[in-house]
Amino acid sequence: MKNKAITSRDVDFAKWYTDVVKAARLADYSNVKGCIVFEPRGYALWEMIQKTMDKMFKETGHQNVYMPLLIPESLMQKEGELIHGFAPEVAWVTQGGEKELEERLCIRPTSETLFSDYYSHVIQSYRDLPLKYNQWCNVMRWEKETRPFLRSREFLWQEGHTVHETREEAEEETKKMLDVYKTFFEDYLAIPVITGRKTEKEKFAGAEYTLTVEAMMYNGITLQSATSHYFGQKFAKAYDISFKDRNNELSYCYQTSWGSTTRMIGALIMVHSDDNGLVLPPKIAPVQVCMIPIQMTEKVLDKMDAIRKELEGVGITVTVDQTEKSAGFKFAEAEVTGIPLRLEIGERDLEQNQIILTRRDTREKKEVSLEEDIITVVQNELRTMQQEMFARAKARRDAFTFTCHHLDEVKAQMDKQPGFIHAMWCGDEACEAKMKEIKGTKSRCILEDGEKIDEHCVVCGKEAKYHVVWGIQY
Amino acid sequence: MKNKAITSRDVDFAKWYTDVVKAARLADYSNVKGCIVFEPRGYALWEMIQKTMDKMFKETGHQNVYMPLLIPESLMQKEGELIHGFAPEVAWVTQGGEKELEERLCIRPTSETLFSDYYSHVIQSYRDLPLKYNQWCNVMRWEKETRPFLRSREFLWQEGHTVHETREEAEEETKKMLDVYKTFFEDYLAIPVITGRKTEKEKFAGAEYTLTVEAMMYNGITLQSATSHYFGQKFAKAYDISFKDRNNELSYCYQTSWGSTTRMIGALIMVHSDDNGLVLPPKIAPVQVCMIPIQMTEKVLDKMDAIRKELEGVGITVTVDQTEKSAGFKFAEAEVTGIPLRLEIGERDLEQNQIILTRRDTREKKEVSLEEDIITVVQNELRTMQQEMFARAKARRDAFTFTCHHLDEVKAQMDKQPGFIHAMWCGDEACEAKMKEIKGTKSRCILEDGEKIDEHCVVCGKEAKYHVVWGIQY
Repeated sequence: MKNKAITSRDVDFAKWYTDVVKAARLADYSNVKGCIVFEPRGYALWEMIQKTMDKMFKETGHQNVYMPLLIPESLMQKEGELIHGFAPEVAWVTQGGEKELEERLCIRPTSETLFSDYYSHVIQSYRDLPLKYNQWCNVMRWEKETRPFLRSREFLWQEGHTVHETREEAEEETKKMLDVYKTFFEDYLAIPVITGRKTEKEKFAGAEYTLTVEAMMYNGITLQSATSHYFGQKFAKAYDISFKDRNNELSYCYQTSWGSTTRMIGALIMVHSDDNGLVLPPKIAPVQVCMIPIQMTEKVLDKMDAIRKELEGVGITVTVDQTEKSAGFKFAEAEVTGIPLRLEIGERDLEQNQIILTRRDTREKKEVSLEEDIITVVQNELRTMQQEMFARAKARRDAFTFTCHHLDEVKAQMDKQPGFIHAMWCGDEACEAKMKEIKGTKSRCILEDGEKIDEHCVVCGKEAKYHVVWGIQY
Repeated sequence: MKNKAITSRDVDFAKWYTDVVKAARLADYSNVKGCIVFEPRGYALWEMIQKTMDKMFKETGHQNVYMPLLIPESLMQKEGELIHGFAPEVAWVTQGGEKELEERLCIRPTSETLFSDYYSHVIQSYRDLPLKYNQWCNVMRWEKETRPFLRSREFLWQEGHTVHETREEAEEETKKMLDVYKTFFEDYLAIPVITGRKTEKEKFAGAEYTLTVEAMMYNGITLQSATSHYFGQKFAKAYDISFKDRNNELSYCYQTSWGSTTRMIGALIMVHSDDNGLVLPPKIAPVQVCMIPIQMTEKVLDKMDAIRKELEGVGITVTVDQTEKSAGFKFAEAEVTGIPLRLEIGERDLEQNQIILTRRDTREKKEVSLEEDIITVVQNELRTMQQEMFARAKARRDAFTFTCHHLDEVKAQMDKQPGFIHAMWCGDEACEAKMKEIKGTKSRCILEDGEKIDEHCVVCGKEAKYHVVWGIQY
């Protein structure tokens, strides 16, 4: 039985996506154009993501700070490329209280400027380095077309900003945080990713280079999912972040920044969910087990409560749905909201000394004898589900990964089924532009250790320099 | 030995306050007027506060959500009193991207309007009620005079917004959240508080009434520390939040809101800290124990590490300062940053099979035999310190609490030593205005069960209606 409130994803993927967001009550449109309301289930997902990533950031030696929301225009302009990149898409505050401001202030689209300004005050000596800070906050970019979680004017994110004594250390940090993102995506979100370097055209304004985490959605469209930037001394020179080095000479620092956003919730939906609603990997699901009593009798409820306590004792998150709705309604709700495991018990099950366990992803039902150790059974199911969700996503990603040798092959493939296209590139931006004419296909990243597929560029046929993964992006 | 970077609090309290903020590196001034940078130690305090309160909110049945940062002017204007109260102190966005906006948008000073707008969409029936939501976010009020944590243009806070079927339930919620705040202040921040109702003049714009948590700082000046508002049906009527009630008739909802801010960090400083810097109650300190090796020998470091593991095993937060600074420098740093307990070990201590334990608040040193169970010793010290910090704050609060019968007594007292003044009031705003002439003395709250001190109003001498606590406020 299919959820009637949800369009089939194979019929209309875009409609399916917004149907899932609405049916699972993750977010609601707001009265503020281009901004959404994060409803409790959507925000709980963000809290799980935050909690998990924050732990990984702290374990790699980072501390959290908080910078102001507003950036004076003059401060923003110090680094030319950044303001150039963001000018068309920032919101400006021009009135404060009842007065016109002397200088307009922009709502942060990102905080390199504020971090750099701060670092220029507090760093004097190599002894003050490194500083490895991160902040969780809201940012704003004045987008024209928006979609819940994927692209909105305001979004929530984390932005790491670090300062180092040497180029080597900063480059190592840039790479390390890319690896942290990759681990988070694969181990927690169960989303296989490819990583590599952005081309000059696609890199972050102001960065020397950008490393990226790229994921493929169910429909073969790709999503830039997190990025890590190496700045070299660009901001250090623009904002005068200098220090006395070990030779007692004045040097400029080396910087990095790295970010990931609430867009990850969009990735979770588009990789794993189905025509019955949300499907969440157990390690990131705010609630892992939903228990549903078939009859609300004391005997059934007591048994539920005993099992709930056992499971909570080992850190599994559980809800027991004791509302007055029908069992069928509760099943549907647990399903559409993506709770990984459903446990049902009724009078008859108790007579047979068993409970019924249903996995959300496969929707397979299983009778579990109460003779078995319920903790082990549930832990195994959660672990297996996490692994199988990753394996399924990877199999689909691999099935939609193609190698192309000529432009007409790329075109034919993108017409038939978009995906990751592996192809060689000469390094010329004109060839990137030609590629873009094919339904907006862009370079996702240059593989650092990519094998040489051909001697020639897929577009112009001249000598190829890079193994690039291409794709149509959200 | 006194910390030379810090002015004595008895000499210049305002200067002492900013000295402590700077010396402990809690916050830095930013290039954005009226906004501060939360440095790692300041933000870590906020994270501890958030974590603790968030747990209390969830345990009382609340869920987190996130509403947009910007509010269209027309939406803001629907409830007349609110916009009237906030109009002089909001920041307006008038340009987005490179265009002038058709309607200006204000940066949220508080989010009643957005919550109400959302509730009006999603509530249809009494079955949808109650909705008990909270959000953690940044807000902005265009203040003229600012001080770190106490008053700034941007600050961080939580705002709870709930909707109920009946007046009784909403009023119960208003009271319950006041109690949650009181518990948090007293049990975690070790700050004794008084609670009561705001006068009409001092209540929140748009509320039917406001309940408040009021604390006294070291210098006798008072701080409004958290508030809980009962809205009745005011917003429900302005934003059309109606539902089919149990009789199948259309009714308006009853609402509450309640908030607390990063100002609590200011309260922590001003109640507990001293001329040597920050003093933090153990239950809210991001790091509870700092271990300092006198010599960086293997023997000493191994012992430190063994103790650290034991303490962390029972959930005590520990750092071992293994930097290359001198032991004296490390002592000073642990002190100024307010780490509750300092443990030192040197070669000589090890020979005597002991370690040295120093409490931050009393600065008392104690030799602890390694024969003793270190976990129990540390847990007892932390518990005692928490209790004694509360007791000391309460004793000082009580010593600065006075009862006055006539206006000249109030004046004499405020000239001599400000504090909480208990006095009767007739209910007339003209009398509040007269009181304000005494160094800005305002009613802090009306005590709900306050004893009758006099028959007459402390100002005008007419019949008294309320037992009011008055004070000079931050």
